[in-house]
Amino acid sequence: MYKCNQVRLQQTIDYFSRFGATENGGVTRLSLSEEDLAARQYFKECCQALGMDVKVDDMANMYAVLPGKHDIPPIVMGSHLDSVVKGGRFDGVLGILTALEAVRTIVDNEIELDAPLMIVNFTNEEGARFEPAMMSSGVITGKFEKETMMQSTDREGVTFAEALSKSGYEGDAENRLNEAYAYLELHIEQGPVLEAEGIELGVVEGVMGMVCYEVRIKGESNHAGTTPMTMRRDPMLLAAKLISYLDKELRGVDETLVYTFGRMNAAPNIPTVIPNEVIFTIDSRHKDPRVMERVENILLGLPKEEGGCAVQTIKLWGRDTVHFSPDICDEVEAACQRFGYSSRRIYSGAGHDAQFIASIVPSVMIFVPSIGGKSHCEEEETSYEQCARGADVLLESILILQAKQSLQQPITTK
Amino acid sequence: MYKCNQVRLQQTIDYFSRFGATENGGVTRLSLSEEDLAARQYFKECCQALGMDVKVDDMANMYAVLPGKHDIPPIVMGSHLDSVVKGGRFDGVLGILTALEAVRTIVDNEIELDAPLMIVNFTNEEGARFEPAMMSSGVITGKFEKETMMQSTDREGVTFAEALSKSGYEGDAENRLNEAYAYLELHIEQGPVLEAEGIELGVVEGVMGMVCYEVRIKGESNHAGTTPMTMRRDPMLLAAKLISYLDKELRGVDETLVYTFGRMNAAPNIPTVIPNEVIFTIDSRHKDPRVMERVENILLGLPKEEGGCAVQTIKLWGRDTVHFSPDICDEVEAACQRFGYSSRRIYSGAGHDAQFIASIVPSVMIFVPSIGGKSHCEEEETSYEQCARGADVLLESILILQAKQSLQQPITTK
Repeated sequence: MYKCNQVRLQQTIDYFSRFGATENGGVTRLSLSEEDLAARQYFKECCQALGMDVKVDDMANMYAVLPGKHDIPPIVMGSHLDSVVKGGRFDGVLGILTALEAVRTIVDNEIELDAPLMIVNFTNEEGARFEPAMMSSGVITGKFEKETMMQSTDREGVTFAEALSKSGYEGDAENRLNEAYAYLELHIEQGPVLEAEGIELGVVEGVMGMVCYEVRIKGESNHAGTTPMTMRRDPMLLAAKLISYLDKELRGVDETLVYTFGRMNAAPNIPTVIPNEVIFTIDSRHKDPRVMERVENILLGLPKEEGGCAVQTIKLWGRDTVHFSPDICDEVEAACQRFGYSSRRIYSGAGHDAQFIASIVPSVMIFVPSIGGKSHCEEEETSYEQCARGADVLLESILILQAKQSLQQPITTK
Repeated sequence: MYKCNQVRLQQTIDYFSRFGATENGGVTRLSLSEEDLAARQYFKECCQALGMDVKVDDMANMYAVLPGKHDIPPIVMGSHLDSVVKGGRFDGVLGILTALEAVRTIVDNEIELDAPLMIVNFTNEEGARFEPAMMSSGVITGKFEKETMMQSTDREGVTFAEALSKSGYEGDAENRLNEAYAYLELHIEQGPVLEAEGIELGVVEGVMGMVCYEVRIKGESNHAGTTPMTMRRDPMLLAAKLISYLDKELRGVDETLVYTFGRMNAAPNIPTVIPNEVIFTIDSRHKDPRVMERVENILLGLPKEEGGCAVQTIKLWGRDTVHFSPDICDEVEAACQRFGYSSRRIYSGAGHDAQFIASIVPSVMIFVPSIGGKSHCEEEETSYEQCARGADVLLESILILQAKQSLQQPITTK
């Protein structure tokens, strides 16, 4: 078995964290920003130094290919170099850098592969500059309309099309990822489970389905001092009641269900005035569509009227659960075992490019622990040792998969 | 008994509603704004036409005096001409215009009074341009420091001192209201009680004591999709629980207690992120200090920590109950009865200049019904018939009080 070089990986992570470095040890590397372009340029140079050929498609997705002995579909590793504002040094970029470390180890050890090996950098995964998230993996897999995405604007009013044109990364649609034998994406967990359980790696079986609803409660504004309690139509009291009710109901559905009341807006939001409207959101996620159906039934069962207030329950968005390839999961798990690294099966609660790529290529994700479960913040942290273990398993999985491919073994997609 | 002229009162109300008229039938007449100055000028002309002498004090409070036969302390009627942004045509100004109608009726009928009769227009009652509310009645009664008030700034950065100087209403501190036999303030109820009970007039016994607290709940932000429920410190769930708990506890304290959760802010307020902090306010009012003490004990009894979250309960402001003069209340009630107007005793949940003036002069307020309980909005409404009934009772009360004063009858202050 081949092991990656932890010191080299650490140096590479540290080097990349300079692109858009923030005061408090994080990065701000918005898609196609100067900082992102600098990171892209350095990534390209690293790949070319390894003898990889770098192509770009019409969404600025970058594809670095290490040729194999045969002209067969590639094995692909991928992730993204962009970050949120004041994000961490690991989210996204770690998937690219462990892939780079895997290729470096292959080149160092003069391992000859039958299949080409590809590293993809997907454009604008975070959606932090241009909405939506996972924009470019979405376009090449037919989830999003390219023309609509081109019109997406950032806070300065710059469209994605303008940023793309200015970036020098407007490539050819011909270069888009299509046929591949397998797709592997390593990522930080962005949650506390692996660390809390003392487990080194997560074999990600899929991405949980989710729904996001908005509950709008309309009451009546009146003077806080002059309106008797019996003559009020107070949407805040009802909001509190409904949140507590939903908490109680949803807690009983399934112990791995998650739900979050993340946004709450009251109007006019003045201490001395009874609000006339309170709006809150509920985001809920689970891997099992039957559980999600129960969640939606509970949400849609909210009263339409209560305490003199009108209640509207509106679905903002949702996605179905995406299941990754069980065969590749088995190979990743076996790779962990061969290294003696502890692992567990896990579903991702967060969205990733892999959830779209899985619709065209058998896919998997590998999670490394997030210290304190933190992500999308400057405190985001994963030990270099854990990063290296991830790189080891990524490399080992690729070697196994290319051997399977050479034997023309088919892979289940779900 | 003398009755006021409803048609003339209606014309005067309609005329004054032109000063700062809004599109939807309300007024925006911020203190010392152009619109307020125009209303002041017209008010002054109306008073002078009645033979009243108009003086101004150092807070721009206007005092119009109709001389009496004797040089004894005046009987005072007062209120304010300023309004909130997009306020109604009645709040404040109605107290001035019913007083004007009372004086007009006295002059028309050539009624000779022993005591001087005064109408006061208090500056910046609303506090909508310069905080705090009831600024100028507060200064002349020693509740607020004049120098501090002078530095209060509006949204454009103009200080009260600058606006005062520019207004032409910077008068003499000597003119401040001090000794008076009685103070009467007619106002719209700003609540739904009179209308709901079909009662024509409110004899206001005082202004309820109030407290405003802020409850700050600190939890921990994490990803809504990746953080298991058991590993969360979610301040929103706790906020909902505490609001429902306080609602249940406070509802049991006293049936006339009012409480309002008017402001709620969550951070970062994003659907896909567990909030790290939720802050809400609770405003509560009641006339009985023992009830308010129980309210504060319940608030201060909130847990300091729960569900992994830290809870801080902070008092933002409060005021003690102000009791008006029982003797004057009796006279106002008797006046209502003589006209055959239905009335009830009531405490004001809102603040008014009278609550400060009561500390230097025996005071009372008279409420007329607010249709739908609406105030501080363009929909604010009171029928002209009800306004005229208020003016009748105001006039009758003054005549009775001046007779008492002539007989040198003392008045209880509380």
